[in-house]
Amino acid sequence: MVAKKGLAELGEFGLIERIRQQAVPAPYLRLGIGDDCSIQAVAAEDELMTSTDLLLEGVHFNLEWTDFESLGYKSAAVNISDIAAMGGVPRCLYLGLAVPETVSVEQLEQFVAGFVAAAQAYGAVLAGGDTCRSGVALVISVTAEGTAPQGQAVCRSGARPGDLVFVSGTLGDSALALRMLQQGKQPSAQLAFRHHRPQARVTLGRRLAETGLATAMIDVSDGLVADLGHILSASGLGAVLHLEEIPLSSGFSEVLIRQPEWLELALTGGEDYELLFTVASESAGDIVRLAAELALPLTRIGTLQAEPGLLILQQDGGHYPFQRSGFDHFSSDKIY
Amino acid sequence: MVAKKGLAELGEFGLIERIRQQAVPAPYLRLGIGDDCSIQAVAAEDELMTSTDLLLEGVHFNLEWTDFESLGYKSAAVNISDIAAMGGVPRCLYLGLAVPETVSVEQLEQFVAGFVAAAQAYGAVLAGGDTCRSGVALVISVTAEGTAPQGQAVCRSGARPGDLVFVSGTLGDSALALRMLQQGKQPSAQLAFRHHRPQARVTLGRRLAETGLATAMIDVSDGLVADLGHILSASGLGAVLHLEEIPLSSGFSEVLIRQPEWLELALTGGEDYELLFTVASESAGDIVRLAAELALPLTRIGTLQAEPGLLILQQDGGHYPFQRSGFDHFSSDKIY
Repeated sequence: MVAKKGLAELGEFGLIERIRQQAVPAPYLRLGIGDDCSIQAVAAEDELMTSTDLLLEGVHFNLEWTDFESLGYKSAAVNISDIAAMGGVPRCLYLGLAVPETVSVEQLEQFVAGFVAAAQAYGAVLAGGDTCRSGVALVISVTAEGTAPQGQAVCRSGARPGDLVFVSGTLGDSALALRMLQQGKQPSAQLAFRHHRPQARVTLGRRLAETGLATAMIDVSDGLVADLGHILSASGLGAVLHLEEIPLSSGFSEVLIRQPEWLELALTGGEDYELLFTVASESAGDIVRLAAELALPLTRIGTLQAEPGLLILQQDGGHYPFQRSGFDHFSSDKIY
Repeated sequence: MVAKKGLAELGEFGLIERIRQQAVPAPYLRLGIGDDCSIQAVAAEDELMTSTDLLLEGVHFNLEWTDFESLGYKSAAVNISDIAAMGGVPRCLYLGLAVPETVSVEQLEQFVAGFVAAAQAYGAVLAGGDTCRSGVALVISVTAEGTAPQGQAVCRSGARPGDLVFVSGTLGDSALALRMLQQGKQPSAQLAFRHHRPQARVTLGRRLAETGLATAMIDVSDGLVADLGHILSASGLGAVLHLEEIPLSSGFSEVLIRQPEWLELALTGGEDYELLFTVASESAGDIVRLAAELALPLTRIGTLQAEPGLLILQQDGGHYPFQRSGFDHFSSDKIY
């Protein structure tokens, strides 16, 4: 097995050196890969935000459906999305890799290239990590640190009754691509891209935080219903959404013509990494202007109310009967 | 299977809530578990240090040899040790857990209790994390953040020719306990404790950093030879160590009487989490005083030299022929 030999010959510290060579410097990073810790400066006027994710082969991804470069890109982007979801600027990323014998040095380098490309796309750098072998599956851990000026971070808990619910971009594309892959079908390039190379909405999150427009915010990782549920539960509120307002891509709508039941994927599918946020009703015009400025659809999909619960109204006035509330790692069926 | 049912019934967000209930607040932590990121303040005069570790069942630990509470404690302590190794004060810990069906909710709560206990012992808090299921093995990722006043952090690269090499505590106990477990023998309580509940030398690291005494520092995780090798390679130096000066515990020395070949474990065994540091020769007296102040043995084991390479001298003047340089995750044999 060439792959096995390559990694064993290179060794742990050889691999770390290869990874280090792909990392780029940053003015705030005083010490990057190669010591016990990274060292960075944090400006006095900023707060530090930190988020961590674990990604497991067979749970979060399937190596038959993705290339290593895209997997690296996605691993960084989904963690950066957590920084974006509070209005922060991502800075330092940390990458843990547990690698089975079946993965080659070349594949790991492609992974790191994708990871570093995503970091760079959002102004962040790879600042540290850990590598080891894995008995069976590829395991990826990512921690992201970001900053925002003190008091600007947008939490899940700040929403108020009467606030409008907005979401960026379109929903369901990633889950639809995954559903098609699960069924042995080939998703369109547009849908596949949304699944394999999700975009973190860093600029949008930043603008919503610095303007103070968003009262609460979260990124759509578990699905619209589940993630809105997190805002509702943290803010002690309920919401009414309008099904026909949920923004869908042309690719999603096309598939829906033949498979109308897959509409549910836009509500509960997850992995969209769009920003879901609430704003005071008098700020609606500001959101319209921000959408134009960023050339990014920001769609009003509903309203918050004091009464708990989530209703999704259909055009005929009936309640849309969604089957599940979103992805739960311990209660859901295997998906990869 | 009761274990499986428990976690599936509790669900991902139920588990996170259970973990959140065990977490404690801290003055610098503005937002802990429960949003997309934690938020913390970093003082203007401080630098931020960050380190991350991945721990896999079957690679880093064996559930037949450890209880969950100790595993949680060790998972936090080994990451805190990286902060100590640069002279920082640990602050925020992030815990990623991928949990197989065979692990029960009660076991996870014991794990978290041990993790939080270690955090508290060193003045840190659990500030965030991620949970998911795992197909096979238990996977733990830990990220630690710490701080130190600007310019105090001790790197691996600052050592100079003529500096003295010191190490805290005793070496080899953890590796000896592991070797005995591998061979189906029962290590003494003292040795087992050193393996399952390693101490992070935070106070020592801090004192060495704030006094400016240490020119270079690292924690002994891969073994004395490998970790000194990291200092030598980062500083572009070599070293001569004296075998008879390597500090051994009474428990280690006792076993050595019957198994003298296991002396090598004190040199290459790893997982001691003692601090290995270098100081200018004129500071030797300060180190003796610091050892007395902290009631912790700080033993001089050798000297740095400009010529590269590592020599370990025996009492008869010969070179000790160590077989391997330390643990390498991709080149070494399976140990758990």
